[in-house]
Amino acid sequence: MKMNAKEKELEEKIGHVPVFFRELASSDPQMHEAVLKIDNYVWADGKISRKNKKLMAIAIASALRDDNALKAQLAGAKKLGLTIEEVDEALRVAFMLSGMPAYVHGKYAANETFKS
Amino acid sequence: MKMNAKEKELEEKIGHVPVFFRELASSDPQMHEAVLKIDNYVWADGKISRKNKKLMAIAIASALRDDNALKAQLAGAKKLGLTIEEVDEALRVAFMLSGMPAYVHGKYAANETFKS
Amino acid sequence: MKMNAKEKELEEKIGHVPVFFRELASSDPQMHEAVLKIDNYVWADGKISRKNKKLMAIAIASALRDDNALKAQLAGAKKLGLTIEEVDEALRVAFMLSGMPAYVHGKYAANETFKS
Amino acid sequence: MKMNAKEKELEEKIGHVPVFFRELASSDPQMHEAVLKIDNYVWADGKISRKNKKLMAIAIASALRDDNALKAQLAGAKKLGLTIEEVDEALRVAFMLSGMPAYVHGKYAANETFKS
Amino acid sequence: MKMNAKEKELEEKIGHVPVFFRELASSDPQMHEAVLKIDNYVWADGKISRKNKKLMAIAIASALRDDNALKAQLAGAKKLGLTIEEVDEALRVAFMLSGMPAYVHGKYAANETFKS
Amino acid sequence: MKMNAKEKELEEKIGHVPVFFRELASSDPQMHEAVLKIDNYVWADGKISRKNKKLMAIAIASALRDDNALKAQLAGAKKLGLTIEEVDEALRVAFMLSGMPAYVHGKYAANETFKS
Repeated sequence: MKMNAKEKELEEKIGHVPVFFRELASSDPQMHEAVLKIDNYVWADGKISRKNKKLMAIAIASALRDDNALKAQLAGAKKLGLTIEEVDEALRVAFMLSGMPAYVHGKYAANETFKS
Repeated sequence: MKMNAKEKELEEKIGHVPVFFRELASSDPQMHEAVLKIDNYVWADGKISRKNKKLMAIAIASALRDDNALKAQLAGAKKLGLTIEEVDEALRVAFMLSGMPAYVHGKYAANETFKS
Repeated sequence: MKMNAKEKELEEKIGHVPVFFRELASSDPQMHEAVLKIDNYVWADGKISRKNKKLMAIAIASALRDDNALKAQLAGAKKLGLTIEEVDEALRVAFMLSGMPAYVHGKYAANETFKS
Repeated sequence: MKMNAKEKELEEKIGHVPVFFRELASSDPQMHEAVLKIDNYVWADGKISRKNKKLMAIAIASALRDDNALKAQLAGAKKLGLTIEEVDEALRVAFMLSGMPAYVHGKYAANETFKS
Repeated sequence: MKMNAKEKELEEKIGHVPVFFRELASSDPQMHEAVLKIDNYVWADGKISRKNKKLMAIAIASALRDDNALKAQLAGAKKLGLTIEEVDEALRVAFMLSGMPAYVHGKYAANETFKS
Repeated sequence: MKMNAKEKELEEKIGHVPVFFRELASSDPQMHEAVLKIDNYVWADGKISRKNKKLMAIAIASALRDDNALKAQLAGAKKLGLTIEEVDEALRVAFMLSGMPAYVHGKYAANETFKS
């Protein structure tokens, strides 16, 4: 499945656009376009770098104990230059805000991503 | 109520230690000490700056729709040099991960903090 | 503050556009436009009527125990022709999915909205 | 395992009573009876049709990012006559209230249910 | 508003039946009866004492950051003989499972309940 | 991997220290030490017995619909002398506070733990 220009723009920002999302282009083009628009605005470099936004998203997904979201966010992490040390620090913030299980969700997913 | 050395160290990191937490020193000293220990480790400058950790915490509290936590995190934000523009970017990340109401919680609390 | 055409379109769909959201037009026009676009797509009559979408949103806000979101959703409920009996049925669904406190959050907010 | 009259009544309303729940009849009969009573009240056709209540339950389970609940709700969806287009609309409401990951949870589960 | 026998039975178990719930008897008698049935089963002394069930409910409400539920659970706490020391221990469990803000929600509500 | 004294102390309190946590000793010793300190304080016998704290933690994990946390809490349950009947009662409390899906998450995990 080829990516269009807006999807390529998004991939540069978040490191990896899930296949699921690209399929949305044909199954629900209006939703796809609307989400792409807001995605491209949210994840752009700004006062906060896209790298720090990614770390933030990983911390949020971990605090929400959402393994799907964690995997989706971590998928592009290495490509954006994130290291396991940075992710660990973000997960410690999630610990304070959402407890040990939030941290553990994050650590399992992060260890999986960075093990190789 | 005077702050001890560890509390001062924490205040430098997070901008503001809530009165509630300082009262814990007398009402539950073991809990106070244990939380202080982990707090001082989590919020230290590291691979992620304390400023970016604060933004991360604001985004998480917003994604969790937790107004108490939002206020607590925002209390020290200005002192650490955060601007409303940076907070806005963090809240947009919370929108993607947790929807419009999460963003609205964050915006109300942030507007209150930065209005003066 | 005057509403633009897209906001009027949204108001017809959801019954009430919060002032907060209209202010976003000047404070963060790109975010405002992106959210408006997706809002207008999501809330349109379709296979599910806008009335049933509103009931659904009330049930979700209640299940999430989010009083801000509950108020925002209920604000337009009467204008769209919803009755307290319909809202009660939606909140009973929230009870099954998210427990007694979710139901209670919903009932307090709904009683407030429909009392006059 | 044979269903009793109350369970059959419930199955008509929600499309599918999980085996787990039917086993509860022998392992914890009082809990089974109490839940059956409230279930039969909540899911009955009323001001909101059982079909719309099912869509509502799918949207809530998605907003709560609860894959178990999503599967349980979707299990009876086809039998009640729901289509993927209706479920998609419900999931877009979940997107607005609970963000992209809530929508993605819902889409994965719905695609699985309706693929054949 | 006079309590019926089932409500009195419930009050003995949980220490305090909210006015809201008693009003449900006239506004939605079927819901009232169904909830009363399950409530009376859940909160009875059993392998776990009603006192420990109450502490458990306080810890859960705190972990869910649900101030309404916290107040409702704490309302009957003193009448059942709970002390602030026991509640504090329960809230520390909530800290481990759901983080600092969950603990803070609980502490604010508990301090309010036990201050006099 | 051998356990140190503090880990053994914790294992006595919670029945089972996850391998994940023990690995943290080498990958992030400061985090390991800080969490161990607070863990040993929280889970100690006190006004609430460690057995009742464990039941509380199971109920919270269930109310949060967190399968990882449920498994972690249940891992040590039998060793502390908990029975399926006690866990069932705790899960019924979770039902009231967080709905049917919370209860179902708990039941699946508990049945798995106690089946043999």
